[in-house]
Amino acid sequence: MYASRISRLTGSVAREILSHANNKDMLSFAGGLPANEAFKGLKLPDDEGSSFQYGASEGERSLRELFAERFQAKGIDCGFEQVLITSGAQQGVDLVSKLFIEPGVTVGIEKPTYLAAIQSFALFGAEFEPFGLEADGPNLEEFEQVLQKGDVRFIYLCPSFQNPSGICYSLEKRKAVAALLDEYEVTLIEDDPYGELNYTDACTVPICSFLKKAKWIHFNTVSKILAPGLRLGCLGCSPEFFPHLLKLKQAADLHSNRFSQAVVHQWLSDEDLMAKRTQQLRSLYHEKQQVMAQSLETHFKDLAEWNTPAGGLFFWLRLKEPVQIRELLGCCLKQGVAFMPGGPFFPTEDEGAQFMRLNFSNPPVERIDGGLKVLAEEIGKMVTLVV
Amino acid sequence: MYASRISRLTGSVAREILSHANNKDMLSFAGGLPANEAFKGLKLPDDEGSSFQYGASEGERSLRELFAERFQAKGIDCGFEQVLITSGAQQGVDLVSKLFIEPGVTVGIEKPTYLAAIQSFALFGAEFEPFGLEADGPNLEEFEQVLQKGDVRFIYLCPSFQNPSGICYSLEKRKAVAALLDEYEVTLIEDDPYGELNYTDACTVPICSFLKKAKWIHFNTVSKILAPGLRLGCLGCSPEFFPHLLKLKQAADLHSNRFSQAVVHQWLSDEDLMAKRTQQLRSLYHEKQQVMAQSLETHFKDLAEWNTPAGGLFFWLRLKEPVQIRELLGCCLKQGVAFMPGGPFFPTEDEGAQFMRLNFSNPPVERIDGGLKVLAEEIGKMVTLVV
Repeated sequence: MYASRISRLTGSVAREILSHANNKDMLSFAGGLPANEAFKGLKLPDDEGSSFQYGASEGERSLRELFAERFQAKGIDCGFEQVLITSGAQQGVDLVSKLFIEPGVTVGIEKPTYLAAIQSFALFGAEFEPFGLEADGPNLEEFEQVLQKGDVRFIYLCPSFQNPSGICYSLEKRKAVAALLDEYEVTLIEDDPYGELNYTDACTVPICSFLKKAKWIHFNTVSKILAPGLRLGCLGCSPEFFPHLLKLKQAADLHSNRFSQAVVHQWLSDEDLMAKRTQQLRSLYHEKQQVMAQSLETHFKDLAEWNTPAGGLFFWLRLKEPVQIRELLGCCLKQGVAFMPGGPFFPTEDEGAQFMRLNFSNPPVERIDGGLKVLAEEIGKMVTLVV
Repeated sequence: MYASRISRLTGSVAREILSHANNKDMLSFAGGLPANEAFKGLKLPDDEGSSFQYGASEGERSLRELFAERFQAKGIDCGFEQVLITSGAQQGVDLVSKLFIEPGVTVGIEKPTYLAAIQSFALFGAEFEPFGLEADGPNLEEFEQVLQKGDVRFIYLCPSFQNPSGICYSLEKRKAVAALLDEYEVTLIEDDPYGELNYTDACTVPICSFLKKAKWIHFNTVSKILAPGLRLGCLGCSPEFFPHLLKLKQAADLHSNRFSQAVVHQWLSDEDLMAKRTQQLRSLYHEKQQVMAQSLETHFKDLAEWNTPAGGLFFWLRLKEPVQIRELLGCCLKQGVAFMPGGPFFPTEDEGAQFMRLNFSNPPVERIDGGLKVLAEEIGKMVTLVV
């Protein structure tokens, strides 16, 4: 009685954990939530009431212009008429799935990659061709092998402080990836929610800014630099994609919330405010990241391997010994500590059995060490049991 | 290079006209926009900042409870755990399409029906089984014939002041439709955006409140009683549909705007405010409707046939002589007057060639007569040319 895609509707681990995480006492390393204290400076500007009425499906012209300017400042050749305002970057994923995917279509993805992209692509019937990630970006041989197969509809990448791995592509790999996409003329879907959360001097130039022939869609969002509750994102794209994406947007929800659009326009158009805010966020998150790095060193040295990410919101741990990670999660939740198991970030969950993702932006800084200690103890118990 | 559904992406007449309608001088009978003066009483309440963070995919518990109460007050047996907050009722249509439709699936629809539902269902590959509407609801013989075919996945209805026809089902027909749906065990998708805009004492009891066996999904929205720019709607549904719809919602946009949810909660929980507001809206729109009824009598008596609707936002006209309606629209737009051609409200546009939809809620009351005069003159010219 349902469409066959419903049998491909997977995974609500993340949502289940999030529902636990709403208990105020729960310490959650699971989500990718901004710090609550990061919202303190934000106020809702007055609105004269024009936002009450229906609006354009493509979004407010003035806001599209602002996003186009921001894209251009990053090197992307993108006019406002190529910018579509979306209800969060997640809606960009939904629109791209509708545009490109049906049963039998293959897409190229990083291994691991953003779980809600896997969910959406799989829902619409995609098959996956994954390629491995190294510390500075994709394994280029594997990447080219995926392109060589010739039937890949698009490549989905998150090159800056990727969710979940935290990896940031080097400038060289960004250029190499762009050159290969041009050579094979494969479309790039580039997701960039974390680029501004740069705690070092890592390169965050969008890969689509290097493309000469291949077509592209670039997602952005204000969820990390302003507030996710606004559900406001946008995409820029090759001109020929725009009319289709616009109609798909209209069919999805007519247009995005106009109050959010007004609020975001007011904030983004104030360059001083945004510069100050971005700097504050970087300091806040960098401090939390360093606290977590220190605690990991203390509690996890014998249990796991990881790299300290140059930006973003996550540590990505590979456990040295295999554990029953769902069972581990259950034990930790009972102790009031949540984390995100690695499985859902892989096209087949088993591949991620030894991984876990730890968020450092949302937990209160003074609770990070205690929470990691609980996690490490629970892992230790399970590893001992296995041995 | 696109999914095959993209070849089924139709129609942007409505959006094209809306883009004209944004010119301040344009007089638009085309859209279904609330009156701008209807927003005067609305203010944004203060928010303590909790709405900035990510929220639950199903929506805020307190708002779901309020909508459940409103459903129960209308006779629908629906707990808050069956209520999903959506980004406008349009998102409900998108989620239902994803849940049920793939190429080869047949759905039963009113003829005419809401154009954006046709677009969404067709995008996902639906075939249509339409049944005719009479002044008091569906032609029951045709309706039963559609059910008898046995392969109809669901029936989509808008029983109260339907868009575009303005028809409101009688109590008898509501009960008869429910009994037939129960008999054939076919799922009902019931869209109810206009039920509160009742200018008479027409019956607006939801059909799903009469169902005993058939499953159902019921859409509601605050776009007509509060403000469409908030993009906030909700659906209630049979319990077994809920887990699927929730995951589909999560994949579509994670969750709906939390500021809109907070605002709508504050308004809907104030019963006196809402009672007063609904009464004011009814007076405002009823007056405009009566002005349009009078002007139609003056200018259209020889040109068209219509019924005065008992509620909602639209007059639905059948022209006595066939005209090239797209050409007519072009001429009228040049004169600064917009209307909505009837074609997109039918599964095949040609069937609607002699119909037009006129909105009376948005145009300034003092411009209605002048605008209709222009429309009538342009129609008169074209009819004369044909003769």
